[in-house]
Amino acid sequence: MQETKYILDTMWLLVTGALVMWMAAGFAMLEAGLTQTKNTVTILTKNLVLYAAACIMYWLIGYSIMYGQGGAFMGFGFLLNGMSDGNHALMADFFFQVVFVATAASIVSGAVAERMKFWPFMIFTVVLTAVIYPIQGHWSWGGTALGGIMKGFTDFAGSTVVHSVGGWAALAGVIVLGARRGKYGADGRVHPIPGSNLPLATLGTFILWLGWFGFNGGSQLALGSVDDVNAVARVIVNTNMAACAGALVAMLMTQLLYKKVDLSMTLNGTLSGLVAITAGPNYSGIGVAVLVGAIGGVLVVLAVPLFDRIKVDDPVGALSVHLVNGIWGTLAVGIFNPAVSFLGQLTGVVLVGVFVFAASFITWYVLKLVMGIRVAEHEEMEGIDRHEFGMEAYPEFRPGYMPG
Amino acid sequence: MQETKYILDTMWLLVTGALVMWMAAGFAMLEAGLTQTKNTVTILTKNLVLYAAACIMYWLIGYSIMYGQGGAFMGFGFLLNGMSDGNHALMADFFFQVVFVATAASIVSGAVAERMKFWPFMIFTVVLTAVIYPIQGHWSWGGTALGGIMKGFTDFAGSTVVHSVGGWAALAGVIVLGARRGKYGADGRVHPIPGSNLPLATLGTFILWLGWFGFNGGSQLALGSVDDVNAVARVIVNTNMAACAGALVAMLMTQLLYKKVDLSMTLNGTLSGLVAITAGPNYSGIGVAVLVGAIGGVLVVLAVPLFDRIKVDDPVGALSVHLVNGIWGTLAVGIFNPAVSFLGQLTGVVLVGVFVFAASFITWYVLKLVMGIRVAEHEEMEGIDRHEFGMEAYPEFRPGYMPG
Amino acid sequence: MQETKYILDTMWLLVTGALVMWMAAGFAMLEAGLTQTKNTVTILTKNLVLYAAACIMYWLIGYSIMYGQGGAFMGFGFLLNGMSDGNHALMADFFFQVVFVATAASIVSGAVAERMKFWPFMIFTVVLTAVIYPIQGHWSWGGTALGGIMKGFTDFAGSTVVHSVGGWAALAGVIVLGARRGKYGADGRVHPIPGSNLPLATLGTFILWLGWFGFNGGSQLALGSVDDVNAVARVIVNTNMAACAGALVAMLMTQLLYKKVDLSMTLNGTLSGLVAITAGPNYSGIGVAVLVGAIGGVLVVLAVPLFDRIKVDDPVGALSVHLVNGIWGTLAVGIFNPAVSFLGQLTGVVLVGVFVFAASFITWYVLKLVMGIRVAEHEEMEGIDRHEFGMEAYPEFRPGYMPG
Repeated sequence: MQETKYILDTMWLLVTGALVMWMAAGFAMLEAGLTQTKNTVTILTKNLVLYAAACIMYWLIGYSIMYGQGGAFMGFGFLLNGMSDGNHALMADFFFQVVFVATAASIVSGAVAERMKFWPFMIFTVVLTAVIYPIQGHWSWGGTALGGIMKGFTDFAGSTVVHSVGGWAALAGVIVLGARRGKYGADGRVHPIPGSNLPLATLGTFILWLGWFGFNGGSQLALGSVDDVNAVARVIVNTNMAACAGALVAMLMTQLLYKKVDLSMTLNGTLSGLVAITAGPNYSGIGVAVLVGAIGGVLVVLAVPLFDRIKVDDPVGALSVHLVNGIWGTLAVGIFNPAVSFLGQLTGVVLVGVFVFAASFITWYVLKLVMGIRVAEHEEMEGIDRHEFGMEAYPEFRPGYMPG
Repeated sequence: MQETKYILDTMWLLVTGALVMWMAAGFAMLEAGLTQTKNTVTILTKNLVLYAAACIMYWLIGYSIMYGQGGAFMGFGFLLNGMSDGNHALMADFFFQVVFVATAASIVSGAVAERMKFWPFMIFTVVLTAVIYPIQGHWSWGGTALGGIMKGFTDFAGSTVVHSVGGWAALAGVIVLGARRGKYGADGRVHPIPGSNLPLATLGTFILWLGWFGFNGGSQLALGSVDDVNAVARVIVNTNMAACAGALVAMLMTQLLYKKVDLSMTLNGTLSGLVAITAGPNYSGIGVAVLVGAIGGVLVVLAVPLFDRIKVDDPVGALSVHLVNGIWGTLAVGIFNPAVSFLGQLTGVVLVGVFVFAASFITWYVLKLVMGIRVAEHEEMEGIDRHEFGMEAYPEFRPGYMPG
Repeated sequence: MQETKYILDTMWLLVTGALVMWMAAGFAMLEAGLTQTKNTVTILTKNLVLYAAACIMYWLIGYSIMYGQGGAFMGFGFLLNGMSDGNHALMADFFFQVVFVATAASIVSGAVAERMKFWPFMIFTVVLTAVIYPIQGHWSWGGTALGGIMKGFTDFAGSTVVHSVGGWAALAGVIVLGARRGKYGADGRVHPIPGSNLPLATLGTFILWLGWFGFNGGSQLALGSVDDVNAVARVIVNTNMAACAGALVAMLMTQLLYKKVDLSMTLNGTLSGLVAITAGPNYSGIGVAVLVGAIGGVLVVLAVPLFDRIKVDDPVGALSVHLVNGIWGTLAVGIFNPAVSFLGQLTGVVLVGVFVFAASFITWYVLKLVMGIRVAEHEEMEGIDRHEFGMEAYPEFRPGYMPG
């Protein structure tokens, strides 16, 4: 039985890790769908290679920082030493962790889309995945660092550790970078820039939803006992139901507020339900999960115009989804789970937020000073694809195209 | 071993249930690809939120009707009581059931596309998933209701219980709703309205195919014994081979009949093979599965023009795929499985069909009287997206677009 | 425990086989994205029905040739006799093998795209999957044929047996078929024909990446022991990391060589890393996997212009990805794995290459003589979709379209 448990636990990390890897495709489609065609090649490339860079950097450096004893850098030869920690294949554990890092990095790419240069973005991704993410990840999941301050903090699958981290890093980037030209008029009005391909955005949302069953379902880190598999069942059902609640509430809110259903907002409502439930899909019945997801749907509909009012330009709504609901979901565990202290949750949210925002802000700012992070005005107007990539995403769909 | 069986059975429901959830993405892409761009936002939104509504309604009401003892409404607190029925985590069973309901609802959205109002569609979805589907589901899978009349009826994964139910509900809707303007000319001719994005439709078909391995493979409801896993292997192989046969036969038929291969029909041939094998992928070798799928491919090629001849306008071919082949697949079990009576199969098909069609027809009709179910003529001509959603699916692809 | 191992091994073949089936969707999206819209219906149809034809032909003939004793044709009733070989359900083994055949066939469709007739392509697919693939598959995986010459050859998941086989078959086809009109100018210059839909191509790459976890992870053919699951963990991590390295290196190479990052090349770099690691993801730590994938990324960037220089027109880069890196990956095992002889690897590469290229060349040539394999000039100019399918992939996106 002990052997069967080892096999099942390891297999589960691999299967659910593969589902989390699939979320990279979801982010790519979502962001390509919600931005303009002139920047589509850029956003696609970013989403592919940020995943690749995250995996390589976390392997080289990050994993050791996050899970090395005491959080010190342990060298990167560790994976070659032994194949198991007694509970699972060590490589399966690494796989499940590395795809989470990539998720955090994916969140950033959408928020800074349509005006950031490609290479500084990639360098930021390297810093985020090699150093910033692993340091805070060590506090919550890797040990009892920070003199035990984070001990009362609990975050099942990463509303804070993954989603709000991506959100804070993105927020710092957006502030250093500034808004897209034309988004906020001199007249004080917000000029919406509609997404160019809503089927892609919808597909991306479905991909993320499917991947989230792995993200949350795998975070039990075990499957091979009756208790574990019961917990996984609860986690997956609650994840699904929170997403449903977020979708329905966002849809209803847009109908009530704007007299029309808004598909983009409904997609973001779905994702908000998913982000919100991520900190605690494991302790309650379905009712609480639906409530947490529903509030996520409310929050995203309120947050999107709020960010616009303060001129924080986030083309895909990543801040409203991942930052706002990452915070909400983490605090919700302090509210609804009697075993968890609200203050402990708040402490974690604030500590992680302050550290990640500050470290990211400094990184973005240094990049801005050293190499610049924003494309030239004419590049922004004509599209980054043409200037940095020399390619078009849909070359035959422009007016006047003559087939070759 | 008993414990291992519990773990494996529960895990299998979760993994295959996730694959069935993924079918919602398949329906969204298929339907968005086979309809016009002016209604794409509508069809995408419908497919996302119908899944969400189905999950919430089935949780609140439907699951109790379908699996509560005697089919009576048992209240919705049941899921909070206990975590297991001794064989699996109860929540895993709920998850696997709830995604099936969503599949049935997805079938409807395509058939009524391009002229139905959004909100009546959503209300119908609520009624279908909360009441209509669960009542007939109780007859076949939930108990021995109807005084035992349905006792001789067998439907492994839902050719009737899911697919023809979606089909009957859609047929009632199409009849109450009427055809799209311009589809059937005053001259008696059928004017084809081509699908706007065949890569999306093809992607949707592949997604559904993959999801079907979960749909049928999970319907064994167990994995953790040699007999169960052997059965699952048979089910998955037969499912795959029936789809292949349906695709090839539909392709060959269109070449023979029209002198050109028709991609849309080939996609629907694939799906027809899948629907047809769903009632009985578990009792035969591959040869019978190929035959059942191949006949599915024949039927869809014949049914699509037949529905057009009687002016039943089904933009995506959902009736030919899910209704016609749902019936065929169910009857095929009565023909090829010596242990099953053809009469029993026919009885089930007729009882379910009469009930679902009648209940759906009444629901659609009441909705028509109370709030109207059809958009105004100018809304239909200009597209539902603009009027009910205020968004375009592909705003930059229209002629004359100037990038912002 | 023996029973649990049987269950887990069988389940693993089914789950990973489903992921490999999903690669068919990846090839469809990749190839539709990298070719022109006037041929999109053709490429979509080919990718769907080649999968179907491969499954049917391998069931009827190929499986017996490959795994029948001595490689002789054993009749096709075998699957009906008994359900198990003692280690897994026989049908699960068949499922895992049949989806590999389809992968080999998928590789061909991209390379011959945009100028080949549909029906000769389908006939070639039948020959490839029924006869050519199974014969060479028997040498490597099905027995100790060829008088034991192939005994020293090892190919874990098919860099040679699947990928280079698809590549050789494609190369023969491209040579018999010739280049697309206008690709190579009379002036000796290469005229690039850009892919029409890069989001689709990116999606296809992500799908293939996800599917590859099944392709390589399932090729352990077992999961139900600690050693097996440890091996699977190693295989999946190495597969992922090689893909990352291929992506990053191809991206960097294009920046260095062309001063712009090239998305298409980065996608092909990812796939090259995956192809290269496929022969040996199971014997090394991550470092070697990263190195093998990185060299794959270098090779694809060099090979694409090289094929153009010798006027081998491969619209999607399939030869550079699957043939060149299939060879590289196989030889790499002889270099980095001390237990494997380089000469043995080289022998296998050459024998398989000579046989598959010769058999494919003859088949293509006979097809050319008997029925012609190339569309007429005006069909090529106006697009195959219109002439052989009578459909457009994106009918509403052409200039001047008026919505119905």
